[in-house]
Amino acid sequence: MLGQIHIVMVNTTHSGNIGAAARAMKNMGLSRLTLVDPIAVVDEDAIQRSSGAADILQQVRIVPTLEEAIAGCGLVVGTSARSRHIPWPLLTPRECAAKAAQAIPAGNEVALVFGRESRGLTNEELHLCNAHVHIPTNPDFSSLNVAQAIQVLSYEMRLALVEDSVAADAGQWGVEWDYPLATHAELDGLFTHMEQALIDTGFLDPNTPKQLMSRLRRLYQRAAPDKIEVNILRGMLAAMQNPRKQGESS
Amino acid sequence: MLGQIHIVMVNTTHSGNIGAAARAMKNMGLSRLTLVDPIAVVDEDAIQRSSGAADILQQVRIVPTLEEAIAGCGLVVGTSARSRHIPWPLLTPRECAAKAAQAIPAGNEVALVFGRESRGLTNEELHLCNAHVHIPTNPDFSSLNVAQAIQVLSYEMRLALVEDSVAADAGQWGVEWDYPLATHAELDGLFTHMEQALIDTGFLDPNTPKQLMSRLRRLYQRAAPDKIEVNILRGMLAAMQNPRKQGESS
Repeated sequence: MLGQIHIVMVNTTHSGNIGAAARAMKNMGLSRLTLVDPIAVVDEDAIQRSSGAADILQQVRIVPTLEEAIAGCGLVVGTSARSRHIPWPLLTPRECAAKAAQAIPAGNEVALVFGRESRGLTNEELHLCNAHVHIPTNPDFSSLNVAQAIQVLSYEMRLALVEDSVAADAGQWGVEWDYPLATHAELDGLFTHMEQALIDTGFLDPNTPKQLMSRLRRLYQRAAPDKIEVNILRGMLAAMQNPRKQGESS
Repeated sequence: MLGQIHIVMVNTTHSGNIGAAARAMKNMGLSRLTLVDPIAVVDEDAIQRSSGAADILQQVRIVPTLEEAIAGCGLVVGTSARSRHIPWPLLTPRECAAKAAQAIPAGNEVALVFGRESRGLTNEELHLCNAHVHIPTNPDFSSLNVAQAIQVLSYEMRLALVEDSVAADAGQWGVEWDYPLATHAELDGLFTHMEQALIDTGFLDPNTPKQLMSRLRRLYQRAAPDKIEVNILRGMLAAMQNPRKQGESS
């Protein structure tokens, strides 16, 4: 899936940016980089900045024109600052990824085209694209480093094509937790115990309880404790009820 | 809104990364950068890589410890590789941004914490956080450059806070809560008190603490207590240390 995505860099002037782009791509699982008429070469600086993504640099495709770079692609999206002379279909990075996620299973190759460090893509180049994509930015400081722009787009591509169906927040609700969550009955036992311990130590006056237990319930239920956490809390409550004096030692 | 977000870089070794981080932040409209015990200095290389974001570098805050960096923050999220010894609530960048978008209108300061270039954050540092965030990556090449990671998180923050206006459920992070959230420093005071009370009652053996305090930190940080809840818990701890015997009555 991600193998059908081509990152296309036009007239890049800094080899460090080519290396950083390769690293960002590989981090996200992309592998196909095309350089259009590059000014920089793939040198030591590029390899160093790629920080282990030299394989992408070794397989880089270098072509003289953007037309040639995108010739085989069914969906071509050019990165663009917001306003252009002629309006063009303008996508957010997320919409762009959604479009790619539709196009790729149908067998299409997809190109994401990035312009020069100094001034992006020309209008002529942008007009070769099916659509444009604009990364939302601070309007007073809107020019992203090209490798950072590639990072953001590649990240959205990964989310749409690889991670999407991933179950939302794992946290303690999810599968990667170490102990099962406490049941409602176990929590109830905890609160009964807590109330008694608070009465025993004189912290809770059963005649004027106010909101104390309600606030404690809210706190612990919100955290959704697991079984070991409930055990720890009950151990604390027991110690509170029958403290072992310091020095008594076991 | 974005002014309440602090990007916190721990022990950064390359000044170029500090500059690239500043640029990425400013592109997304963020401005507050904190360096914790940095190894690199803000030098010419940093300024050059910031490419016009020198204002952020000039206002950088440098502090000796992570605790100091996050002391005033109501929501602290640390970047992490997926698996850790004790599981912690784990967010995607998008979920993290949604949480921040709930917390910020309620007046909370938010910290996003990024680790060393070589090996990220330590478990100890990660245990100071309310939650962790993991940027989805190629499992065979998962280490993002730190400035790239800052780019991705800052991008999601901008989408959630400026571009989107996502509202979702408020919960304790949001505006419909009755008391402000406890700050990190207040939580820290709670944990210090808790540890002492547990030692006093003989529940915690300081010579073999095992994971007790880590598990308790995880539980309470996950719940993100508000100020009155922290007061209640500290009252309970005080009662635990000096129980008033039943019948003694006021």
